[in-house]
Amino acid sequence: MQELWLVGIGTGNPSHVTLEGVQALREADLILIPRKGTGKEDLAHLRHQILRDCGAAGKVVEFDMPQRDAALPYGQRVERWHDQIATIWAQTVKDAGRSGPVALLVWGDPGLYDSTLRIAGRLDPKPRLRVVPGITALQALTAAHAIPFNTVNGAVTVTTGRQLRDHGWPKGAETIVVMLDGECSFQMLDPEGLTIWWGAFLCMSDQILEAGALHEAGPRIIARRAEARERHGWIMDTYLLRRSVGQAGAY
Amino acid sequence: MQELWLVGIGTGNPSHVTLEGVQALREADLILIPRKGTGKEDLAHLRHQILRDCGAAGKVVEFDMPQRDAALPYGQRVERWHDQIATIWAQTVKDAGRSGPVALLVWGDPGLYDSTLRIAGRLDPKPRLRVVPGITALQALTAAHAIPFNTVNGAVTVTTGRQLRDHGWPKGAETIVVMLDGECSFQMLDPEGLTIWWGAFLCMSDQILEAGALHEAGPRIIARRAEARERHGWIMDTYLLRRSVGQAGAY
Repeated sequence: MQELWLVGIGTGNPSHVTLEGVQALREADLILIPRKGTGKEDLAHLRHQILRDCGAAGKVVEFDMPQRDAALPYGQRVERWHDQIATIWAQTVKDAGRSGPVALLVWGDPGLYDSTLRIAGRLDPKPRLRVVPGITALQALTAAHAIPFNTVNGAVTVTTGRQLRDHGWPKGAETIVVMLDGECSFQMLDPEGLTIWWGAFLCMSDQILEAGALHEAGPRIIARRAEARERHGWIMDTYLLRRSVGQAGAY
Repeated sequence: MQELWLVGIGTGNPSHVTLEGVQALREADLILIPRKGTGKEDLAHLRHQILRDCGAAGKVVEFDMPQRDAALPYGQRVERWHDQIATIWAQTVKDAGRSGPVALLVWGDPGLYDSTLRIAGRLDPKPRLRVVPGITALQALTAAHAIPFNTVNGAVTVTTGRQLRDHGWPKGAETIVVMLDGECSFQMLDPEGLTIWWGAFLCMSDQILEAGALHEAGPRIIARRAEARERHGWIMDTYLLRRSVGQAGAY
């Protein structure tokens, strides 16, 4: 593998792909698609649809994602898993017998809460890396609600459900965006003065949005999330929380 | 103005436009382009080039951006300026005599350190708002350097040069991304243990990148930034700073 292209494809809407992404997928010699197991076929289908829409002409190969070893502590479990995926990539490319650029379609953007860059760093010999930026869940969320990410000159903390559970509201933060939260961790916060904007299946046909004061919108979100997860078999969601500064709802 | 579309166009590379953005610009009835004054013609040219490339068929009208009143304190100055821009938009649309969707091309993403949503909120009567997400400088920066935005499960603070000057390193932060910094405010930080990834004119033909330990890369960035700004007449740049955790350069 001489050249590896990580192509951000946005958050579920095939029209999130950029013109640069379309071009890269057209020019790639080999395209790897992960099979993530039962219940996540939607995601593999979406990748195939994007390839068809773009007119991708390279060879397309699916590979099975390994399982994470639940017996290991979090850090080690992630390390081991990344090692395994890198090995599978290398073997899959070798088996495919292609020598041109290899492309991976990355949900959202390859830089944001995605392991692809770290896995690529484990390849030996190292291929030349190209990253094609993609629309992230952060932008999909703020676009769907038509709200700004930040207040005027304000800072925003982008964080995870795990961080929120372990450390609470980040010190001094005014706005936070929470990713990778399978547990509605906003429940652990004092809702006083907090407004939430939540979205699931953002920019997909099944998009669900909720917003409001956390104390009243929180329970609604928990219920809708559980119902939607049950119906789909999986869910992708994210949310933004803002501490009101001065008058309610101002930003 | 019944409908207003804010279309994120990415950070300077026409191929950052998404397929959704292309479609929106094709379907818009009227497109407003700001004239930002001497030295910034490049930006207006880029907008016109994107419209040509997309096959935009609507009427294209330029309008002059008002000047900010330097005599006012920061908050009031921004408020007044937004009011003036909203008035100019409304008048420009009225004069153009079109009643279909009006589009504005927004650098980066309409949600991220951009005033367009706040200005749109001042329109009376309120048009129906549609936001088309775009590639931000955050993604352009991490893509250009092929680095992740966050560490594994780590939080990231997105902030401004002004915040950094006024409040220093955000408490407890591991990674920060600094936007809107005209003064290389990283100079005010203790560089011990900090790594910087900096980029200017990201994804444009004149892209400049620098990275390294802050104590040695910082002075290089200051010099290159000054030189490039002198040569272009303007500059757009951003940077990511990461506090090393454990071994140097790890993330």
